[in-house]
Amino acid sequence: MSQNGIVAKDRAGSEIISVDAMGGDLGPGVIIHGLARAIRQHPDVRFMVHGDSETIRRLAARRRLLDRCEIRHAKEMVSMASKPSQVMRHGQETSMWSAIDAVRNGDASAAVSCGNTGALMAVSMMRLRKASGIKRPAIACLWPSRNTSGFNVLLDVGAHIDADRRDLLGYAAMGAYYARSGLGVQRPRIGLLNVGTEDHKGRPEIRAAHELIGSEAQRLNFDYIGFVEGSDIPSAKADVFVTDGFTGNIVLKSVEGTASLIREFMREAFSHTPLSRIGGFFSFTSLRRLTRRIDPRRVNGGVFLGLNGTVVKSHGKADSVGVAAAVNLAVLLARSGGAENLGTGGVLNLAHLAEEHDPESEAEQ
Amino acid sequence: MSQNGIVAKDRAGSEIISVDAMGGDLGPGVIIHGLARAIRQHPDVRFMVHGDSETIRRLAARRRLLDRCEIRHAKEMVSMASKPSQVMRHGQETSMWSAIDAVRNGDASAAVSCGNTGALMAVSMMRLRKASGIKRPAIACLWPSRNTSGFNVLLDVGAHIDADRRDLLGYAAMGAYYARSGLGVQRPRIGLLNVGTEDHKGRPEIRAAHELIGSEAQRLNFDYIGFVEGSDIPSAKADVFVTDGFTGNIVLKSVEGTASLIREFMREAFSHTPLSRIGGFFSFTSLRRLTRRIDPRRVNGGVFLGLNGTVVKSHGKADSVGVAAAVNLAVLLARSGGAENLGTGGVLNLAHLAEEHDPESEAEQ
Repeated sequence: MSQNGIVAKDRAGSEIISVDAMGGDLGPGVIIHGLARAIRQHPDVRFMVHGDSETIRRLAARRRLLDRCEIRHAKEMVSMASKPSQVMRHGQETSMWSAIDAVRNGDASAAVSCGNTGALMAVSMMRLRKASGIKRPAIACLWPSRNTSGFNVLLDVGAHIDADRRDLLGYAAMGAYYARSGLGVQRPRIGLLNVGTEDHKGRPEIRAAHELIGSEAQRLNFDYIGFVEGSDIPSAKADVFVTDGFTGNIVLKSVEGTASLIREFMREAFSHTPLSRIGGFFSFTSLRRLTRRIDPRRVNGGVFLGLNGTVVKSHGKADSVGVAAAVNLAVLLARSGGAENLGTGGVLNLAHLAEEHDPESEAEQ
Repeated sequence: MSQNGIVAKDRAGSEIISVDAMGGDLGPGVIIHGLARAIRQHPDVRFMVHGDSETIRRLAARRRLLDRCEIRHAKEMVSMASKPSQVMRHGQETSMWSAIDAVRNGDASAAVSCGNTGALMAVSMMRLRKASGIKRPAIACLWPSRNTSGFNVLLDVGAHIDADRRDLLGYAAMGAYYARSGLGVQRPRIGLLNVGTEDHKGRPEIRAAHELIGSEAQRLNFDYIGFVEGSDIPSAKADVFVTDGFTGNIVLKSVEGTASLIREFMREAFSHTPLSRIGGFFSFTSLRRLTRRIDPRRVNGGVFLGLNGTVVKSHGKADSVGVAAAVNLAVLLARSGGAENLGTGGVLNLAHLAEEHDPESEAEQ
């Protein structure tokens, strides 16, 4: 069982990744193509693919993946317009539900879906349950940075549209765990996103979180560096950037959109004149390295933190390169022990904070 | 007087821009250098420069600007750590106050400051007053985009850390005015930033604003295209992107930071190997055009909308290129009639909405 910390492997010892084939905006063809790409990086990985079995079998045959895929038929799919509450009540026959249940049952070591974020979080929470001590799971993403690991962690990028001070403290602790296990940073530095770095800046709930995270940092084994600004996210100032899911989601997508615009400008610049085309020819490998470095598709994949199981949410519009990046991230997390290391172990237990009066928390318990 | 819509010009008919020389993180030297750069684009412009007169005279002499500058001595300055409320009570002797008062008194047609945003907004609101019908001013910035004008408008990027539905409607109306007068878009398309485009997405106040802006669009002479996502900001989907000042500020700075990182990667890519250096040589003009296009300094300058007077807030860390961009924007707005076109004219009057019960609004009035 995944809950007991045993990572699902096949008889040969390779990881099994559970894949929701029906979730993305671009259809199952792109997702199966992404699996074929992911195999180049992880030749041993195997897949459990959920969705319309006829379609998946045909697509997998075309990509020569039939011997690597176990196909599990699901007759329904979750659309982008589906409300999470509907999916929780009536979604048992969907490919998303089936993909998550494979992790729950220990048949796979991590799940990947390009589907509706709200529904995926709802199904993941219901089927995998929150890890011990976690009030609210979050979605974390990796951000290209000047740090030696090459990445920073940003969370929450969309699990919840608001966050109180205890949620933000929980995100700090989960982000620290992710930086430790995913990026190898022994003592992560945590920053809290705000409109300025001075103590009096920001909304009241941000200032309250600032105090709380500062007072808990020692116990939770990370360094709290205080308020940080948006411009610091790609910097070496901190390893983990904490914010609410509304801000995090809009920031993430804004930067993805702008990086795409810059890539377009680059293509134009190097086809503008005959001279610049010659220049582009001589710079071919440098340009390719550059475009790979700034390609948002290559850091595709938000990780759900705080659950008893690893779930990677790929961008809904991800192409095969993006799907491959999400699958590769799932493999990396599965190998590092997966969600068990991220969500539990007692360190994240914030139960003592619940002693304070908090009607929302009481209602939940 | 500026309030009467008469733009301050000297006897030769050139615009006079009021400049707070002491506000930026990098000191007055960079600001005076920026004025020298701005003159290359606008050879007729004149300046009224506020701050320590000895320092300014010395710096202006070095840049051969003495015959273009009227210097107004101010013995104090606003620091980045100053609280807006303190500056409002005791800031009469600061260079920032003096720079704003020059617009109030009709001695200059627009003001530029690199100083503390909160203090600048507070002083601007107190000295210039809100334009008729405006409940809350906002700060708008231009964003490189795929639209034919080359830019989109994003607001609020930091005037207020929260916004209710009527604030967001006000931002939509002011943003539409800015797109009309600053970008020449006759019927601007307005989008409201959210975590998804479906009607049920987002916080309650965002959904309420969605309904309100939709119902008022016709009367306010713009098209409301509904919810948009962060990835749409550089797109041609809309001309104006509306959000609260907390989200807008963090988004703006995140993208600036990431664009800087990409520029750094580009420099590295083109000095990596001898071959790529040759490539860089052949691509010199293309590369230069590209780096200019993605240089965040060149779109530096947030405009305060909704006041009886034009104020451009430059980035605190702006170098001379950034200061010049902010001054050029101030000249453009002064020539298009300035704040009088942005803030008033009756179209923006949202007084009928105040008839609804709204304790916050009543408390303010």
